[in-house]
Amino acid sequence: MAKVQMGPRTSIYPMPTLLVGANVDGKPNFMTVAWGNIANAEPPMAAVAIRGNRYTRLGIEQNKTFSINIPFADLVKEADYCGIASGAKVDKVRNCHFTVFYGKLGTAPMIEQCPINLECSVQHSLKLGSHTLYVGLIEEVHISSEYLSEGKVDPDKMNPIVYLGDPLRQYHAVGKLQGKAFTIGLKIKGKE
Amino acid sequence: MAKVQMGPRTSIYPMPTLLVGANVDGKPNFMTVAWGNIANAEPPMAAVAIRGNRYTRLGIEQNKTFSINIPFADLVKEADYCGIASGAKVDKVRNCHFTVFYGKLGTAPMIEQCPINLECSVQHSLKLGSHTLYVGLIEEVHISSEYLSEGKVDPDKMNPIVYLGDPLRQYHAVGKLQGKAFTIGLKIKGKE
Repeated sequence: MAKVQMGPRTSIYPMPTLLVGANVDGKPNFMTVAWGNIANAEPPMAAVAIRGNRYTRLGIEQNKTFSINIPFADLVKEADYCGIASGAKVDKVRNCHFTVFYGKLGTAPMIEQCPINLECSVQHSLKLGSHTLYVGLIEEVHISSEYLSEGKVDPDKMNPIVYLGDPLRQYHAVGKLQGKAFTIGLKIKGKE
Repeated sequence: MAKVQMGPRTSIYPMPTLLVGANVDGKPNFMTVAWGNIANAEPPMAAVAIRGNRYTRLGIEQNKTFSINIPFADLVKEADYCGIASGAKVDKVRNCHFTVFYGKLGTAPMIEQCPINLECSVQHSLKLGSHTLYVGLIEEVHISSEYLSEGKVDPDKMNPIVYLGDPLRQYHAVGKLQGKAFTIGLKIKGKE
């Protein structure tokens, strides 16, 4: 199998589709972020990469808090819109008909229509070049009750948006189950 | 829609399934990482979170380089195994029948069977608690030629493993197309 050298590029697949929220001058704004993930387990932290000129970044710097909202596939249009439009010019909350709520931090706006919401307080910010990587302590997680079964996330209702980045740039649903983690690999482990 | 407070937890969905490679005492080792993503565009950088006691971390510290290998769904057993077994005890390369190659950095082992491979040099390491977040400059990307069409990644052949983390812990395929990014959101933008 021959390998082709493509040069340095942002080739990680898949990515999540996240709406990062911040209050800018006291007003809630949200932007789409594919470059985010968990960064630490104990205590739980998340990291998101935000381009320097983004309006949302002003709010993160003002309050040292942000939210991560996880839209499901029924919000794919809204999720994409928040990556195209700028809060400096339009009111994305109004245009997307989002209902905004606040949690314990008070300054990290969250979207009720997104089934999962994380409130974060900034612990580190790393200026890497075009982007700043914000590492936030996850202070609280809010989940819409209809996605829970017996107090846990119901796997049958999990429908987050899978993003395939450059050069594809397309949103997908989660596909068929391929195996249970920490289980399917035991087939190899047993053969050692 | 009522929200339930779940406490601080690592609730980001979906995640990728990555095999992070490093030479430990000169020998290639790979571990499964779901907590990784791109961190910067110009220049391209990636960040991966590695638990403090992991064997692979020794190799990253020794060489200040690592690789990110993206298995497709046909390698789901191997991908899971590399998260269960420790390179301190077993030879994962042998047990998974991986063919290892090296690129321009010389010390970041890569897996030929993974269609996409990134070579990274460590730029920052952030000790966050249980995990260290390594930010690497992406020095080269290698793609298996059979996944390219006219020099670009062929979307029809893209089959990376989607990971749904705690408490689900399961691997999925990429599902149905939901829309093109920077396009489907224009339906809202047009109504401003």
